[in-house]
Amino acid sequence: MSAAVKDFKSMGPRDLRCELDELYAEYIGCLDDCELEKWPELFTDKCVYKIIPRANYRRGLPLATWLSESKGMLMDRVVAIRQTSMYAPRYLRHLVSGIRIKGWEGDLLSIQANYLVLETLVDDVTKIFNAGVYLDRLAIVDGQLKFKEKLCVFDSIVVPNSLIYPI
Amino acid sequence: MSAAVKDFKSMGPRDLRCELDELYAEYIGCLDDCELEKWPELFTDKCVYKIIPRANYRRGLPLATWLSESKGMLMDRVVAIRQTSMYAPRYLRHLVSGIRIKGWEGDLLSIQANYLVLETLVDDVTKIFNAGVYLDRLAIVDGQLKFKEKLCVFDSIVVPNSLIYPI
Amino acid sequence: MSAAVKDFKSMGPRDLRCELDELYAEYIGCLDDCELEKWPELFTDKCVYKIIPRANYRRGLPLATWLSESKGMLMDRVVAIRQTSMYAPRYLRHLVSGIRIKGWEGDLLSIQANYLVLETLVDDVTKIFNAGVYLDRLAIVDGQLKFKEKLCVFDSIVVPNSLIYPI
Repeated sequence: MSAAVKDFKSMGPRDLRCELDELYAEYIGCLDDCELEKWPELFTDKCVYKIIPRANYRRGLPLATWLSESKGMLMDRVVAIRQTSMYAPRYLRHLVSGIRIKGWEGDLLSIQANYLVLETLVDDVTKIFNAGVYLDRLAIVDGQLKFKEKLCVFDSIVVPNSLIYPI
Repeated sequence: MSAAVKDFKSMGPRDLRCELDELYAEYIGCLDDCELEKWPELFTDKCVYKIIPRANYRRGLPLATWLSESKGMLMDRVVAIRQTSMYAPRYLRHLVSGIRIKGWEGDLLSIQANYLVLETLVDDVTKIFNAGVYLDRLAIVDGQLKFKEKLCVFDSIVVPNSLIYPI
Repeated sequence: MSAAVKDFKSMGPRDLRCELDELYAEYIGCLDDCELEKWPELFTDKCVYKIIPRANYRRGLPLATWLSESKGMLMDRVVAIRQTSMYAPRYLRHLVSGIRIKGWEGDLLSIQANYLVLETLVDDVTKIFNAGVYLDRLAIVDGQLKFKEKLCVFDSIVVPNSLIYPI
């Protein structure tokens, strides 16, 4: 963005944490503000986005509730949500807490963070929709941190209502 | 507060984020600690504090659940809560996540953040009371950031029980 | 950890906040990742860990839901949870928000932060388990911040199901 390219790999934890606070705030912001079109832009071209129950993840079982393997697939899903899917209108609201910097593995930065997603259906109270942990790997693309892999590992096997929007 | 006045407008995002973390922690802290008298002090003399359902906000409809237009009105409300209102005792508990720095517009700093407010009535479990987004504009007064405008845009049209305390 | 010992007491609020973000992320991370054995390591040898309802705390009543007074007692409890206790399997998920630096009192750093703990039982939805405020005192041991005292003051007198894991 700026003329001076950020050197993430030599950043101290303090600076890196600030960058991550911004990235995750932007991530949940674009989902909750219904700026869904901006969401795939936070990923690398080739990427993994997966929503998977904790029970499956722990046992190494592959079955996931959502699996996309490229930015194109994410964009495709956004178009589907906007234009073809039928579902009751709803709002999501994300909270993220406890961002942990797990370290660099080569050019990928491993991050872990807890999340809570609230859902509000029309004329209904706000309810817990989904909670779990993000297990993410970030890559540097054009001087910005992007999601190369994002696993949303959720605690409850029960998905109330239906999963329409990304977590 | 200190001899050296902070120059918020020339601060980088890292320093600014730290200031915001402190401000929002203080904001929710004085509400949840029942230090309600400190709450109006976080606003400018002339200010807007509004709690408004998302549906109304999005359509530009003016009807709000709470509207105060000065620090005096906020103080007045605190006195009402303390001395004249009748309501079942309750505790609130705020969580704030995803603070986004939207930028300066003249001397005002635009901030957005998700919030969740939990409510606990006597002999009852803790429940979700209200969730939504803060849309705030901050001004610098005497070297401190204060709320010039604070909109609490909440997701559910349903307010369980009644709204007594600020969000 | 590193050759250069961190000088917490002379740190500015910005650096200190980063350290606290990391400490609390690690605290909730080891609880939610089922790395329970790492949890006592975040405390000093002689310490106080207490989970107490707000009503009791406010009136100065001593009765607590959980009281441990040393790292050894914490380790003992972890062994009990792992090996002897009988309880339905469950996951906890912590969110922490609004970390406030209350200041140094001698060699102890006072910190306050809101928390929300979610619980997920097998084949059930995720529910609110416990919410309240951490009232903590941190000491410096071997160049690291450790909990000398951690009070979990919770809002609801009602503990759903049973309290097995730490808060």
